[in-house]
Formats: sequence, C-alpha cells, structure tokens
Amino acid sequence: MIVSKKLALSTRGNSDTVNITPAVERAIVEADLASGVVTLFVVGSTAALTTIEYEDGAVSDLGRVLEKIVPRQAEYEHHLRWGDDNGHSHVRAALLGPSLSVPFVGGRLTLGTWQQIILIDFDTRPRQREVVAQIIGE
Amino acid sequence: MIVSKKLALSTRGNSDTVNITPAVERAIVEADLASGVVTLFVVGSTAALTTIEYEDGAVSDLGRVLEKIVPRQAEYEHHLRWGDDNGHSHVRAALLGPSLSVPFVGGRLTLGTWQQIILIDFDTRPRQREVVAQIIGE
Amino acid sequence: MIVSKKLALSTRGNSDTVNITPAVERAIVEADLASGVVTLFVVGSTAALTTIEYEDGAVSDLGRVLEKIVPRQAEYEHHLRWGDDNGHSHVRAALLGPSLSVPFVGGRLTLGTWQQIILIDFDTRPRQREVVAQIIGE
Repeated sequence: MIVSKKLALSTRGNSDTVNITPAVERAIVEADLASGVVTLFVVGSTAALTTIEYEDGAVSDLGRVLEKIVPRQAEYEHHLRWGDDNGHSHVRAALLGPSLSVPFVGGRLTLGTWQQIILIDFDTRPRQREVVAQIIGE
Repeated sequence: MIVSKKLALSTRGNSDTVNITPAVERAIVEADLASGVVTLFVVGSTAALTTIEYEDGAVSDLGRVLEKIVPRQAEYEHHLRWGDDNGHSHVRAALLGPSLSVPFVGGRLTLGTWQQIILIDFDTRPRQREVVAQIIGE
Repeated sequence: MIVSKKLALSTRGNSDTVNITPAVERAIVEADLASGVVTLFVVGSTAALTTIEYEDGAVSDLGRVLEKIVPRQAEYEHHLRWGDDNGHSHVRAALLGPSLSVPFVGGRLTLGTWQQIILIDFDTRPRQREVVAQIIGE
C-alpha cells in the first residue's frame, strides 16, 4: 500500500537546518501502516536531506565543514552564467543529496535516540519548501 | 507492483555528467503506474547518482569542488596495490553514493523544475554504464 | 510483501569499515523474494552506509580524504557543548548519510563485481551497531 504525503516547510535559507522528524512521524501515524519504508525527497536543487544528532553544536559543525569545502564566497560558473549568487547552494545540495529512505517497523521510524531527520536549505534566501514523503508499507 | 528496468548509458568518464531524467521518466511511463518510488542504482564503484540543476555552470562547479577535495593527481593506496589510476574515482563515488530514490505521483517524478537526475562517471576512461531502475508502485 | 531484518554488527570505531554485503545477501535469500528493493538504514548518528570496491587501498583512501576534509583533531562545537570527542564522527556520518537502497532482481543484489556495501563506524570507540534491512519485493 502506498500513501503520499507532502510536508510543507518554511525555511530561512543560508544553511537553515530544520528537524523534520516530527512531521515525518506524523505522516507515518496518519498512514496507519505497521511496517515499510518512507522515501523522503526534497523538491528543488538547493536543499538536501540527511540525519544528524539535532543539537546546535553538531548542526553548526556540519555547516562549518560545508563552508570550508564549498565556500559561499568563491567563484562559481553558475554565477557567471545566470547572475545568481547561490552556486555553493547547488554544489552542497548535490553532495548531500535530495533523498533519504527510512524504514519503519511497528509503526515507528527506526531512528536512533539521538538521530533526527533534517532538511538543510542551502539557498541564499527564505524559501517555501516541499518534502515528498512516499510511504510504502503494509 | 514491481517493474524492473535497466538504463544503458555510454559515458566519456573523467566526471562526465549525464542527465538521466528523460530515461527515468520514460521508464515510469512504460511501467504505467500512478504512484510509487523509483529506486535508481548505478552498477559499479566509480560512478554516482544525485540531482542538480543540469546546466553547464552548476555541473562544472560540482566537478571543480570534487577535484579540490578529492584531487585526481594525488597519492592513492588503491594505485599502489593495483596499478590503477582511478583512486580518486572510487573515493568520489563512495562520497556521493550509488543510489537515489525518487517518488512519483500521478505518473510523474516529483522533481523540481530546475532539478535533474544525474549520473557522474568518475572513472578515467569511457564506460558502458548500467543504472537499475526498480519501480515500486500501484 | 515486506520483510524486516536486523543486522547486528560489532565495530571497532574510528572509521572501521565493515563489508556488510554477505549479511545483506543472506537477508535477501531468507526473505525468499525474487525482485524488489532492500532499504538499508544504520541506526545512530555516527555511522554511515555507502558502496566501494572493498579492498584495503580504496578503503584507506576514503578514510584519508575524510580525515582531510573533516579532521578528527579540530575544534567542534559539539565537544564544547557535550564534552564529547566525536564531533568529526557526526559530521562525517551526516555527509555520507545513513541510508542506502539497493535493488535485487532474480533474487540477487544488482551490485557490480567490485562493488560492496559498507558500514563505516566513525565513532571513537567500539560499538554494537544495528542496520535495519527493510525488504520490499514480490
């Protein structure tokens, strides 16, 4: 059985990192399935999904490492071609990836105690984001 | 219901980046399913899948960042052991990952307008690549 | 049809890299399904899953690159807040990601000949790890 949900999120951009675990848990409860997989997919090419221990320190550390390896202030071809300022956003999003698949068993996500699902919005301005939660289960 | 497709692709290697979105869309149309998830998986350990805005600038920016963090010209243990020249290809492929799961709803992939599915072939020579598209839907 | 398996693994931590392909293959055989997808998910926020050619050289190269871009000896906010020593572990795990989806066809994973599924434990001590293998197939 397949249940489609859309999670709507407001972000502030600039690596704003949102804990979407409660929204995903709610989607699983509403789908009323015992066991399966939720495939999460963020629509757009300047945001990404992963998991982390959602506390300010670890979130800040991840942001700092990404700033080091893909700095915001650098030359990007994407800027030269399109007059944009978010070349780093595209590269960071492609590195982390837009999709995440999380099993659920007994109606609960199989996350660790200190493991949360996050959306990072790398764009340079606030955005309305959509995360598709496609739930396949029984 | 499960439908298996194989996408065959010729690449030029050396971070050749191919937009496989049209091939994936065709697979979804042929499967004739309304809603579900397509799991894409590239066979082999020197290529990867992700999404990006598929335009020359952003593609080039991603390649340049990967060259900076995983340079082609460097010492790799893989070379010393096997006489290969593609140590960087293995590392880049492992970092980005071989699989991507994309929901479809109403027979259409839930991609953003400027978001395309790409295969990057990090190997140092042209290759024939196979991407498995496993479609689970109803 | 959905079959849930749990793979229990002992790791030594410190980027210990375990080839879990045999365990995943065994789970597929036990599930006795012909075609589908196995979604693998590592429970916890300091380990990750990907694929690589599992030989000492390539594994060592990946570890060295991760040490370069996310060094163990550096300042992490996570340390300051929690007195931990594994800030790098959290960042590396978030970069690589906790989930991997691998199709199987004819009862076999669609891996390349030189492509293995690995668990990397980035934590700074030995751990008992659990990887959930959620098998959806027919």
